[in-house]
Amino acid sequence: MTSLSLIEAARSRFPAEVRRTPLLSSPFIDEIAGRRVLVKAECLQHTGSFKFRGAWSAISALPEVQRASGVLAFSSGNHAQGVAAAAAMHGVPAVIIMPADAPALKIANTRAYGAEVVLYDRGGNRSREEIGLEISTARNLSLVHPFDDPQVIAGQGTVGLEIAEQVAELGLTTADVIVNCSGGGLTSGIALALEAKAPGLRVRTAEPEGFDDAARSVASGKRERNLKLTGSICDAILSPELGQNTFPVIKRLCGPGLVVSDEEALSAMAEAFTRLKLVLEPGGAASLAAALYRADEIEGDTVIVVASGGNTDAAMFSRALAKTV
Amino acid sequence: MTSLSLIEAARSRFPAEVRRTPLLSSPFIDEIAGRRVLVKAECLQHTGSFKFRGAWSAISALPEVQRASGVLAFSSGNHAQGVAAAAAMHGVPAVIIMPADAPALKIANTRAYGAEVVLYDRGGNRSREEIGLEISTARNLSLVHPFDDPQVIAGQGTVGLEIAEQVAELGLTTADVIVNCSGGGLTSGIALALEAKAPGLRVRTAEPEGFDDAARSVASGKRERNLKLTGSICDAILSPELGQNTFPVIKRLCGPGLVVSDEEALSAMAEAFTRLKLVLEPGGAASLAAALYRADEIEGDTVIVVASGGNTDAAMFSRALAKTV
Repeated sequence: MTSLSLIEAARSRFPAEVRRTPLLSSPFIDEIAGRRVLVKAECLQHTGSFKFRGAWSAISALPEVQRASGVLAFSSGNHAQGVAAAAAMHGVPAVIIMPADAPALKIANTRAYGAEVVLYDRGGNRSREEIGLEISTARNLSLVHPFDDPQVIAGQGTVGLEIAEQVAELGLTTADVIVNCSGGGLTSGIALALEAKAPGLRVRTAEPEGFDDAARSVASGKRERNLKLTGSICDAILSPELGQNTFPVIKRLCGPGLVVSDEEALSAMAEAFTRLKLVLEPGGAASLAAALYRADEIEGDTVIVVASGGNTDAAMFSRALAKTV
Repeated sequence: MTSLSLIEAARSRFPAEVRRTPLLSSPFIDEIAGRRVLVKAECLQHTGSFKFRGAWSAISALPEVQRASGVLAFSSGNHAQGVAAAAAMHGVPAVIIMPADAPALKIANTRAYGAEVVLYDRGGNRSREEIGLEISTARNLSLVHPFDDPQVIAGQGTVGLEIAEQVAELGLTTADVIVNCSGGGLTSGIALALEAKAPGLRVRTAEPEGFDDAARSVASGKRERNLKLTGSICDAILSPELGQNTFPVIKRLCGPGLVVSDEEALSAMAEAFTRLKLVLEPGGAASLAAALYRADEIEGDTVIVVASGGNTDAAMFSRALAKTV
C-alpha cells in the first residue's frame, strides 16, 4: 500500500515537467468565505490536472522492460491526457480506451499527446474491460488504474507534500484541506502525505449533489455507492464509488465530506476567473465552492482548497461567466 | 536611475504576498509557435497583474515618515489596484484619481483594496494632474508614477530576476523575452535585470496595432508617440509614449518590437484558456499573440512570454472564448 516513503519516492522520480503548483489567494475570496482561503492551483499542472502526477508515478515505477511494452488506461477525461503525456515523455506506447461518444476535443488531445486511442461503443456488445484485456494481453501493456493503484495514489500524494511545505512557509499548522473526490486517489494520497508531514491539517472531500458517495462512506464507515452514474456537470468526479485501496485511508483520515450543487461549482469557477485568474472545470471547482458556500460547515481561520483541474470548454465556461457580477 | 542593485533591493523588501509566478508551457502552444514557448504567468500576481510589484517597491522605498502620510496615483486600471493593495498592506492611505467613466468594477475593486477613489471628469475644466496636485499638496501624499519612477522600474525588474533564475534551472542561456509594453516600466526593468543576470536573453516589446510607439522608438532611436489614445481592446498598454527614464534603457537593450492585432490578442487569450488554464486580459496577451502569430519575426528555439495581467471581465472574455476551436 501507499506510504509516505512511496510518495516521496514518486516525487524523487519526477522530472521538471511535473510542476510544483502555486498556492494562490485573494482578499475578495477570503471575504466571501469568511476566512483565509489558500487555493492549490493544480489546474496549472501539465495536461491541466493533477492526473499527470499519478500517471508519471505509475509509469516511472514500472520495471524498465515492462514499461517498454507500453501502458493502457480507460478514461474519457483527465486521466487519459495524463497517461498519454506521461507515456510519451517516457518514450513508451500508450493505448487509451475511450467511449466513442467522448467529446471530440478530448479524443483529439489524447491523440495529440501521442497516445493510440481505441474507441468503444457504450451500448455495444463488448465492455471496455473486455476490449482492454484483449489489447493489453496481446501487446503486453500495463494497466494504469485511474485511482486505486498504490503508485498512482503515491503520485497524487505529492500534492500533499507540497501543501505541507507551502503551509510551513506561511507558518500555518492547522487547517481543513478540501479535495475534490471521485475514486479517491488524490484524496487518499494527500491525506497520507499530510498525516506524516502536517498532522494538523485534515482532509475533507468535496463532491457534487447526488454523487456524494465519499461523504456517505465517511459517515457510515462503509463503502457507499452513488445511485446515478451521470447527471452532474462535474464530470471529472463522478466515479460510482471509492477504491478498495483509497477507501480505508479516507475512512481513517478524513473529516466530514462537503457537498455542493452544480450551480455553486459554476459560481466558484466565476470567482476563480475574476479573483484568481484561473480556469477551473466544474469538478475542479467543487472544493472552492465548498469553501465559499459551505462556510458554516468549516471551522478554523484558514481553509486550503485543492483546485484539481481546468479542462473545460468554452460552452461550459460561458455558463460560469454568466455567474460573474 | 534603476540598476541591478536597486532591483535586488526591491526584491529584498518584498513580503510573501509578492508571488514568484510560475513559468508555464504547453506542447500545443509550442506547436502553434513552432518553437518552445515559456509563459511567465504574471496574471497570477497579487491584484492580477505585475503592477503590484512596482507599487510595493515604490511604497516600501519611501522614508517612513513620508510613507506614513500616504500615496497618490493616477490610474483607471491595474496600477490603481496595485497601489491600493500595496498601500493598504503597508497600513498607509492611498488616494487614486480615476476617470468618472472608468468601469464600475475597477472603481469598486480599488476601493475594496482600501483606497480612497477620487473621480474626475475626463471632459471637465480641471485636469487630473491639477486635481492630484491639489490633493497631494494638501495631504502631503507621495506620487507613485505608473512607470517612470526608478523604484517602480526596480519593482517590475524583479520579474526579470525570476526569469533569469527560472531559465537557469532549465539550462537555457539564449532566448527572446517578449514583454507587453506601454510606458515601459516592466520592459525596462526586465531588460536591466536580464542584462546583468542572463545576458543571452534579449527583451522585445509587444504592442497593439496603432499603438506601437515602443517598436517605432526602438527603430528610430528617438522617443515616438502614438497618434491615438484610444481604440484598442488592449487598454492596459495604451500609454502615449515611453517614459524619460524607460526609453533610454529600452533603446539600449531591446530588440525589434513586435506588433499584433486586437483579434490576435483575443486568439492568444483563447489559447491561454484552453492550454494553460490562465485568464489573460487583452493587453496581457499581446506578448503571447506575438509568439504565436509573429513566429517568422522571431529566431531561436525558445521564446519567453511575459503574460502581464488578467484583469478582464466576462464580456471581453466571451469574445476570446468565441475564438476557441
